[in-house]
Amino acid sequence: MVKSDIEIAREAKMKPIMEIGAGLGIPSESLMPYGHTKAKIDLGYIDSLKDRPDGKLILVTGINPTAAGEGKTTTTVGLGDALNRIGKKAAICLREPSLGPCFGVKGGAAGGGYAQVVPMEDINLHFTGDFHAIAAANNLLAALIDNHVYWGNAVGLDPRRITWRRALDMNDRALRSIVNSLGGVANGFPREDGFDIVVASEIMAILCLSTDLDDLKRRLGAIVVGYTRDRKPVHARELEADGAMTVLLKDALSPNLVQTLENNPAFIHGGPFANIAHGCNSVMATKAALKLADYVVTEAGFGADLGAEKFFDIKCRKAGLAPAAAVVVGTVRALKMHGGVAKEDLGTENVEAVRRGVSNIARHVENTQKFGVPVAVALNRFITDTDAEIAAVREELASLGADAIVCNHWADGSAGTVDLAHHVVELAESRRAAFKPLYGDEVGLEDKVRTIAREIYRADDIAVDAKTRAQFKEIEALGGANFPVCIAKTQYSFSTDPNAKGAPTGHTLPVREVRLSNGAEFVVVICGEIMTMPGLPRVPAANKITLNAQGQIEGLF
Amino acid sequence: MVKSDIEIAREAKMKPIMEIGAGLGIPSESLMPYGHTKAKIDLGYIDSLKDRPDGKLILVTGINPTAAGEGKTTTTVGLGDALNRIGKKAAICLREPSLGPCFGVKGGAAGGGYAQVVPMEDINLHFTGDFHAIAAANNLLAALIDNHVYWGNAVGLDPRRITWRRALDMNDRALRSIVNSLGGVANGFPREDGFDIVVASEIMAILCLSTDLDDLKRRLGAIVVGYTRDRKPVHARELEADGAMTVLLKDALSPNLVQTLENNPAFIHGGPFANIAHGCNSVMATKAALKLADYVVTEAGFGADLGAEKFFDIKCRKAGLAPAAAVVVGTVRALKMHGGVAKEDLGTENVEAVRRGVSNIARHVENTQKFGVPVAVALNRFITDTDAEIAAVREELASLGADAIVCNHWADGSAGTVDLAHHVVELAESRRAAFKPLYGDEVGLEDKVRTIAREIYRADDIAVDAKTRAQFKEIEALGGANFPVCIAKTQYSFSTDPNAKGAPTGHTLPVREVRLSNGAEFVVVICGEIMTMPGLPRVPAANKITLNAQGQIEGLF
Repeated sequence: MVKSDIEIAREAKMKPIMEIGAGLGIPSESLMPYGHTKAKIDLGYIDSLKDRPDGKLILVTGINPTAAGEGKTTTTVGLGDALNRIGKKAAICLREPSLGPCFGVKGGAAGGGYAQVVPMEDINLHFTGDFHAIAAANNLLAALIDNHVYWGNAVGLDPRRITWRRALDMNDRALRSIVNSLGGVANGFPREDGFDIVVASEIMAILCLSTDLDDLKRRLGAIVVGYTRDRKPVHARELEADGAMTVLLKDALSPNLVQTLENNPAFIHGGPFANIAHGCNSVMATKAALKLADYVVTEAGFGADLGAEKFFDIKCRKAGLAPAAAVVVGTVRALKMHGGVAKEDLGTENVEAVRRGVSNIARHVENTQKFGVPVAVALNRFITDTDAEIAAVREELASLGADAIVCNHWADGSAGTVDLAHHVVELAESRRAAFKPLYGDEVGLEDKVRTIAREIYRADDIAVDAKTRAQFKEIEALGGANFPVCIAKTQYSFSTDPNAKGAPTGHTLPVREVRLSNGAEFVVVICGEIMTMPGLPRVPAANKITLNAQGQIEGLF
Repeated sequence: MVKSDIEIAREAKMKPIMEIGAGLGIPSESLMPYGHTKAKIDLGYIDSLKDRPDGKLILVTGINPTAAGEGKTTTTVGLGDALNRIGKKAAICLREPSLGPCFGVKGGAAGGGYAQVVPMEDINLHFTGDFHAIAAANNLLAALIDNHVYWGNAVGLDPRRITWRRALDMNDRALRSIVNSLGGVANGFPREDGFDIVVASEIMAILCLSTDLDDLKRRLGAIVVGYTRDRKPVHARELEADGAMTVLLKDALSPNLVQTLENNPAFIHGGPFANIAHGCNSVMATKAALKLADYVVTEAGFGADLGAEKFFDIKCRKAGLAPAAAVVVGTVRALKMHGGVAKEDLGTENVEAVRRGVSNIARHVENTQKFGVPVAVALNRFITDTDAEIAAVREELASLGADAIVCNHWADGSAGTVDLAHHVVELAESRRAAFKPLYGDEVGLEDKVRTIAREIYRADDIAVDAKTRAQFKEIEALGGANFPVCIAKTQYSFSTDPNAKGAPTGHTLPVREVRLSNGAEFVVVICGEIMTMPGLPRVPAANKITLNAQGQIEGLF
């Protein structure tokens, strides 16, 4: 019988986190333990490493996700373990999972099979409290805004133009749209409001892009919370909120250290959405890992069109990171879905569908190469994959100079990813990488979007109406002209039609709305229905989550 | 220059928390560290102590609070330190401070002067995440309720009769009264809702009264979340919420261990309101401390009329605790206010006002003696107190057999509380204590309220209208007949008039509303305006809270 992820995680022989830290050379006094298998790394210690050379940064990204799954996180874990297995000093960097979705459809998120990070239950629940701290900072700012209006509104905020929303780490559709401050004079001025899930809070993006506590405070102060009646922006610093928010976030800024099932170091820190935010773990964690390890494997959210593009154009650009190689992850099953096969037929060999579906991964490979980064393809093996199907993927990708390496880490851990590890080392040590972002800072915001649409999404053009064009101009005038853009669109297709699988062409990217994330220092460009507060399904996972008689958690999987 | 609390706290020479634990005999593997100076104590380890004899439990309670302050927490800390100083193995048990109020009027709450618990900043901020976990469990239940209604409402909840509210650990008046689920079909059915501060959540009371994880789960399942159209109660277990809520709270149930400035052990765990809940730290912490120390000093919220009564009638009754002695804390300044002196005149000697004001403390002493517990009075010394004023207090109390001991722990730490410690040891070792609750479980709910009103508040009677009387009957029929009552009224007076200082008589206790806390297993009886979500003041403390250039927190005081 195949063991469940939680059963495998429970059998893990974890090492004390101080020992994992010692393996990276971190002295125990620079690790703040949270229990015996989790720790935060002291910011002062990280700062003391700044003159060390950086290790090599490897990005793991993927095809457009399908119902078949692709296994980006497991590949990141498996590759990190395999790099250690072949003698490299390697660490991985992942996003923290959000609590809310654990109680919804899917249970936990910390890899799977024999490619997991542990302690899995803790990572999926409160972990080291980072998301709670972000929610508290978000909601302190919200309370200070309404309190400011209540006590006389000296800065002249227009209550209709307050853009700052509240946040909870919970899937709760009832809080998407509310009217607050009801009940009379003592409760303030009623206005429309709503809650986002914490991963959608601008503070999550800010925390993940901040390079130290001063930078964090500066960015928090720069948040635009709303506008006056004559449309002047009001910043968090005008409400004197930035100091207290920084205090709430001071521990959250320290990267978290845990381990893989194979006792290799894993940094798990920060987890912004990959649509309305940039979708990768914190700059603090990645930079610290690069000082402590020779290889750092990290993951970007969703497919490469969203995740890798933002990793390169937002995170790497802003943090001065230069990846040495990238891995695009796919599965034969998922490529078959991109080739038009229905989920129930995935078990049947279909080489033609695979050939059609390869168009999706091929385009992601090409796109990633445009950033000057050499690319490998990781094919996550399923038992139903046939040799002919795998050969078809390899053939189709050969013309791009990308080798497709079959990986078996889900079943075999690092032993199943050794080939990929050797190939990645070869790419990284070839020094072929010459990273460059897709567009310059000085390009106009609308043209930044157009560049991504044409080069990455392969749209013919973007569609911008007069109102949205005015928003671009307004945001440029407010100081956002040199910011990168962060496009929010469906993750299921290159286009904005989630059903357009494979490699669609001839489409247009319609821009609906533009929002300034002035603290995160990017401009969010909304191109589709983006849900910032999920709901729970008819039968939520919460119904089955419980402690069993042994005190173990059931139902997080 | 007098040092501020935060300056004193910063200069503390803290010992590693493993060393503090070792002093109590706790093995390091049974301590889950949170940083180097905070830890949670493993529940399995606590369970393993169950056959040990209990130490002696000392309650610290107070007069009705005034603007002059009384210093209950500092007395608890000082007495604990002094008991250690005179050779007793002593620990203290305190409530966890709430995050929200830190950003409001007053800054932090962890004692003061040289009678503090540390690390002060951490304790006042996220600490070990207990309150965040309680908020998450509270809000998961709320999300599951609205989700249940959204997906067909199989149990037939009447959306107008949903009594479960959401919770945040923030002072935010804008969330007191809201309409949720606006915005159309996908967001559910709009209804009136609101947020309470976390300390007012029933889950806080449940966590603080639970004796193990099974008891916690049973209580969470028993929560009444609302009623059907024909007024049948709907419980959390009918929504299958209890398992996931228990999982969210499994670490929060473990008591937290920190230390005093003098490196003595301090359990800080749980913090329910003392009006709509019972106002003392967790049963888990108190019971664990009693197994590990010979003396355990603990504090109850507000004045003895609310705090001590609930400590005895709810916590001690339910948890089988029998206090060995109690200390009623007052100050000459506060007694002068009870004697009619205005705050600005407190610096002037006024023996007559002290004599009048002693009526307040005398009544609390008498009341506390009614529970069969010997009582000492601690007079927290201020520099303006005169010998004549102190002599007046002593004289007035002599007839009750209660010695008033002058304490100086704020300025001198344990050295200032040695006299009180010796006296408390004498009382406790006299074995004069014969603890009994004020009323039997079997007494009707309305008569329980009447008993407290007459015996403790010294009201002539209670006033109950027909609607409220029907609520009492309804709750008795729903299974609450044997529960203790938890009266919510102003903390500033024995009566429901906050301006009635001293020892008012001739008043009536008007009962406005009755609520069943079916998981906490008490019945809340509302006798006045009780605010369950505070607001922020015109100039919130948040405006001045920040990190200074040395990375230290400023503005938490």
